[in-house]
Amino acid sequence: LPQTHLWGDTTIVQASSSALTGANLETVRRDNLSAILRHVHLHPATSRSAFVALTGLNRSTVGDLVGELAERGLVRESPGERLGQPGRPSPTVHAVADRAVVLAVEPAVDSLAVAVVGLGGTIHELVRVDRPRGHTSPESTVQDLVDLVHRVGAVARYADRMVGIGVSAMAIVRRSDGFILLAPNLGWTDLALDRMLVEALGMDLPVTVGNEADMGAVAEHLRGAGQGSDDLIYLSTEVGVGGGVIIGGQPLAGLAGFGGEVGHIAVNPEGRICSCGSRGCWETEIGELALLRYAGHGGDGGREAVDAVFAAAEAGSPTALRAFAEVGRWLGLGLASLVNIFNPGLVVLGTRFARMHPFTQDAMQRELDARALRMARDLVTVVASRLGVDAPLLGAAETAFAPLLRDPIAWVERHDRLAGQARTA
Amino acid sequence: LPQTHLWGDTTIVQASSSALTGANLETVRRDNLSAILRHVHLHPATSRSAFVALTGLNRSTVGDLVGELAERGLVRESPGERLGQPGRPSPTVHAVADRAVVLAVEPAVDSLAVAVVGLGGTIHELVRVDRPRGHTSPESTVQDLVDLVHRVGAVARYADRMVGIGVSAMAIVRRSDGFILLAPNLGWTDLALDRMLVEALGMDLPVTVGNEADMGAVAEHLRGAGQGSDDLIYLSTEVGVGGGVIIGGQPLAGLAGFGGEVGHIAVNPEGRICSCGSRGCWETEIGELALLRYAGHGGDGGREAVDAVFAAAEAGSPTALRAFAEVGRWLGLGLASLVNIFNPGLVVLGTRFARMHPFTQDAMQRELDARALRMARDLVTVVASRLGVDAPLLGAAETAFAPLLRDPIAWVERHDRLAGQARTA
Repeated sequence: LPQTHLWGDTTIVQASSSALTGANLETVRRDNLSAILRHVHLHPATSRSAFVALTGLNRSTVGDLVGELAERGLVRESPGERLGQPGRPSPTVHAVADRAVVLAVEPAVDSLAVAVVGLGGTIHELVRVDRPRGHTSPESTVQDLVDLVHRVGAVARYADRMVGIGVSAMAIVRRSDGFILLAPNLGWTDLALDRMLVEALGMDLPVTVGNEADMGAVAEHLRGAGQGSDDLIYLSTEVGVGGGVIIGGQPLAGLAGFGGEVGHIAVNPEGRICSCGSRGCWETEIGELALLRYAGHGGDGGREAVDAVFAAAEAGSPTALRAFAEVGRWLGLGLASLVNIFNPGLVVLGTRFARMHPFTQDAMQRELDARALRMARDLVTVVASRLGVDAPLLGAAETAFAPLLRDPIAWVERHDRLAGQARTA
Repeated sequence: LPQTHLWGDTTIVQASSSALTGANLETVRRDNLSAILRHVHLHPATSRSAFVALTGLNRSTVGDLVGELAERGLVRESPGERLGQPGRPSPTVHAVADRAVVLAVEPAVDSLAVAVVGLGGTIHELVRVDRPRGHTSPESTVQDLVDLVHRVGAVARYADRMVGIGVSAMAIVRRSDGFILLAPNLGWTDLALDRMLVEALGMDLPVTVGNEADMGAVAEHLRGAGQGSDDLIYLSTEVGVGGGVIIGGQPLAGLAGFGGEVGHIAVNPEGRICSCGSRGCWETEIGELALLRYAGHGGDGGREAVDAVFAAAEAGSPTALRAFAEVGRWLGLGLASLVNIFNPGLVVLGTRFARMHPFTQDAMQRELDARALRMARDLVTVVASRLGVDAPLLGAAETAFAPLLRDPIAWVERHDRLAGQARTA
């Protein structure tokens, strides 16, 4: 089965696993159940025959594994469609979106967002609300997020089947424990956002915190413009610029999880001072302040000023169009470096870069073509995000499915036992 | 066991593998033999007890596997040392350096090099000869390499135990087949160097061709300054600048193997035209021409001019010292970008960068400190290569061991059968 490496490394164990005995048989069986459920989670309506072909397991083993997942309520089977071939059609397997859900949460600069996502990727609830810019305290942000969680009924309606909570944060996040070391655009440092959320929600659930662009890359890779693309670069911007990189199907993390900070590559050594303290970072030429500067706005106009530049460009204003072209030029210059470094098959322009794409595309492509090594350039396509501003939120949801997808039966057994206790109490 | 991912993905299969039956038992056994031989290849004198601890296999299974490798002549055991613990000391396992060897070959700009490396990394032969600069035809280069191969006796003495040939090339190499698409500093395009070598040597052996800096990264990671460091960046320079990146123990290749071309990140957008056609690539500020330019040399002085700058710096010439400091400054600037992108634990400065390190270090570190994000910067160390100019050659040797390390028994059986036929004929 295709590996995503997001939820751990269990792979289908080939061939005569039924010849194993004892505890070992259980390990193999658990790993195979995990691999099959991960596949169903990402690929609706996979047929039993496809599983046989994908896994190398025999038909009866696949039937047995799918049967166990169905018995646990995680998947259901529906009669397959006849495809003009002789014989009985193979039943297709579907995730049961109500059996297990996750809560995803995103404190962005200009908005807060919350989603409830079911197994298989069904979005049960998703709400995003604007919020005024300005460094808001972690405490009040958490309170606003909790209010939003209640507004979508996430606790009332879904708490009894919740696997975990995923957080997308525009921050430098330590991979080992999700600790936020620095969130410059939110004004936060050294923050255990996971613990604050769990306490404010009063829910004892595992929380994963990830960098916003890393989460966006995951979502686009699994369910968006990057499906089937195992080597991709995802770019995101609101105020600053973030990046997420997928290499051979695996997210690039680096030693401590700080990898992918492409907004802070030096593209203009004599350029402007960056929020990070360096000079001429890519962010200073393609971030929000750069766009406003190119458009002739002074100072920090924020979202309204950006919207005005978009409106002006749509109305054909040469100044606004030139401003976007200048962003596009620097976008292409930095992308050429990343293409030479990573030799990716795809670049996905996320969040506001996707919105800009119609206006930045030509200048970006020209600069990319002029600067990237021909062999690498010929293999890469640049596209706009398919999941738009919600990609990071949906990527955070994916990471929260880990405990279920790693060991479906253990999760079900624990969950059903706790649910039984709750009913008795 | 630690994964290197260089020779394929076989890992130790845990626990009661002896309960498996038939073909499956053979697969598991083959993978375990592979994993143990890979470990012995990289770690001399591993004790049997260490294997038990590392693999999770029981003592008798480990003894059995090591015994089979010993019987095939690939490893030998020696009595272990008593470490103050009670009981019998555990025997240590060693690779047999004469049982299987590889041939490594490097056509560099200013030199040609050939090595014969035995199992376990023993360097049986290594010779490097200077050659005059200038675009030499592939045909005459191959002929010179073959002469060198004969000079070290590689064919006469080692042909009967040779696993394969590894080539390190300063080139953009297609991963799927080792085809050289472009070698700007050698003046080559579209070249099947593997086929030319095999034909000129008259040896029917598998050949792997890799990018020079990628090979250097592999060697430093496995046997040099990067041992134990799973996230590292390796930099190399002769005329141009190459890079090799190891991420989570795996070489970064990208979609087609063109990844890691860090010499062509744009660091100075208004800078000089680069050999790649872009402008202000890192190579134009830290490559050979840049050093000579900073030192006040006009034009292309080549190796002699570079040696003169080194000599002048050693004699305390302010001009030469300033030239190295300027290289160091740009080195630090580009490294800051790479550190922000990759969050590595280590940067290894290879080949001529290692030689420059005493003169470039201060300026490099100052610029790196000023520009890299603090969290990432605090985790990275910059060191000089331990394997020096031979790292890429030795990395190429490592890749050539693949057929043996992937399936030791199959290799031995095939090899011994062919050797028997040769004796009979």
